[in-house]
Amino acid sequence: MSVIDLPPDERAIETTLRVRYAETDAMGVAHHASYIIWLEQGRTELLRTRGTSYRAIEAAGFFVVLTELQARYHAAARYDDLVIVRTALAELRSRAISFAYELRLAERGTPLLTARTEHIFVARATSRPTRLPPELLAALRDIRTP
Amino acid sequence: MSVIDLPPDERAIETTLRVRYAETDAMGVAHHASYIIWLEQGRTELLRTRGTSYRAIEAAGFFVVLTELQARYHAAARYDDLVIVRTALAELRSRAISFAYELRLAERGTPLLTARTEHIFVARATSRPTRLPPELLAALRDIRTP
Amino acid sequence: MSVIDLPPDERAIETTLRVRYAETDAMGVAHHASYIIWLEQGRTELLRTRGTSYRAIEAAGFFVVLTELQARYHAAARYDDLVIVRTALAELRSRAISFAYELRLAERGTPLLTARTEHIFVARATSRPTRLPPELLAALRDIRTP
Amino acid sequence: MSVIDLPPDERAIETTLRVRYAETDAMGVAHHASYIIWLEQGRTELLRTRGTSYRAIEAAGFFVVLTELQARYHAAARYDDLVIVRTALAELRSRAISFAYELRLAERGTPLLTARTEHIFVARATSRPTRLPPELLAALRDIRTP
Repeated sequence: MSVIDLPPDERAIETTLRVRYAETDAMGVAHHASYIIWLEQGRTELLRTRGTSYRAIEAAGFFVVLTELQARYHAAARYDDLVIVRTALAELRSRAISFAYELRLAERGTPLLTARTEHIFVARATSRPTRLPPELLAALRDIRTP
Repeated sequence: MSVIDLPPDERAIETTLRVRYAETDAMGVAHHASYIIWLEQGRTELLRTRGTSYRAIEAAGFFVVLTELQARYHAAARYDDLVIVRTALAELRSRAISFAYELRLAERGTPLLTARTEHIFVARATSRPTRLPPELLAALRDIRTP
Repeated sequence: MSVIDLPPDERAIETTLRVRYAETDAMGVAHHASYIIWLEQGRTELLRTRGTSYRAIEAAGFFVVLTELQARYHAAARYDDLVIVRTALAELRSRAISFAYELRLAERGTPLLTARTEHIFVARATSRPTRLPPELLAALRDIRTP
Repeated sequence: MSVIDLPPDERAIETTLRVRYAETDAMGVAHHASYIIWLEQGRTELLRTRGTSYRAIEAAGFFVVLTELQARYHAAARYDDLVIVRTALAELRSRAISFAYELRLAERGTPLLTARTEHIFVARATSRPTRLPPELLAALRDIRTP
């Protein structure tokens, strides 16, 4: 299995969420699919705090479609735990974008998950992969280099 | 609280599903929101086995939007249990449709849930409530009176 | 259908959440089951801000099991919308507890949902309905009468 | 990114499921986290059709805890599509187990997802990683070599 590198980007952002009861399973801990949804929340907040938002990208006529997902689970979160989602932009090209994530418990800093996702840009009108227009790319690049 | 009447419709249909691990919670049983999603599966199968399908209704330009939900939980389903969803058309008007449901365990017949949902028809183009065209209404009525 | 009364309790609490992409469906709005999970988040925060927490109730040996759910959907929330969940204690007895909810959009105050849930107390050791011990009941009552 | 090998195991099993409306998102297709839950359904059915079941493993005092997840998304499934989940045992050791998956549309065979998951065995009593007892290991091995 390939190594998931921790995000080296110093401009990563942190989002905090609380584990919902509905997100737990019969093992008494958060179900592993819940973490995948939390990653999405991390991406949403990363885009918002910088030059654009995912909603704005969709409004401009593009979807950001997930094509690859890697996740390593280190420890389990429980109901009502506060979880910190650290999200960084890992790579940006005109046709694709990657994010890296670290999740940990707020209370003791226990590492929960390390993950990476790859996405492509898709034109809503044609449902086909496409390049993002320069102005949107610039807004996204704004995340990495101030 | 109002009484949720059991579906009197003899033309109700039954769908069987198996409780997924992701649908359980830390109480060790299926989370109460999982049942709400199972109702949707019951509606889907009811429409399919008769004159139309929900996919066909959407393709014709209409959404069937849930406006009211009532559910009574009688017992808990567990991971890997087989659940029978009995779905009946409760009421049909040109602007609205209602369904009634009974869920029970396949193995011993233990009643799990009684529920009722109300929906309106919405035009996809305008996002506004609308009447369903006669041909679609007829297809839906076909569920009740053969 | 019975009327769902708006919570008269002046000691209701408000929780804000943001609609996740995973909570939307192919209609382009939040799926109706997502709201049911948001109610749970409202209950969690109501209990926390007062005399106890749901986690503490479980640690003391009790589950609070949902037995009835009523919800009226007034308008749809979309991805990234901020939703305010107003939660009030509706009724408290030694064996049961009810909550009432109003959900609205943060931005324009658009009403989204009115709901009510009924729950019973269940002993974790026996999985049977039970009375809550006086000290936990007192903590819960503390929500209603200061 | 590492290559996810297609399962070479000729004793892979196939499970069919139908995409639920609740599993779609505002892009009009199944949300990427839904596929992760379908993998779990594949594992459940793989174990059932052979020497044991996941429920039996839990009853014997063990959890099978996911520690790593890799998934490649090739195409999107839509509401009401029939999806075939092909699941194979990839590796079995006394302390760990891996599965490989291929998902495709039933209708045209369109490849949807390739994935692999790694799991460890955890004792329910201690919440610690453990070896599976020989009789359970033998039942699991029975999946690979008849």
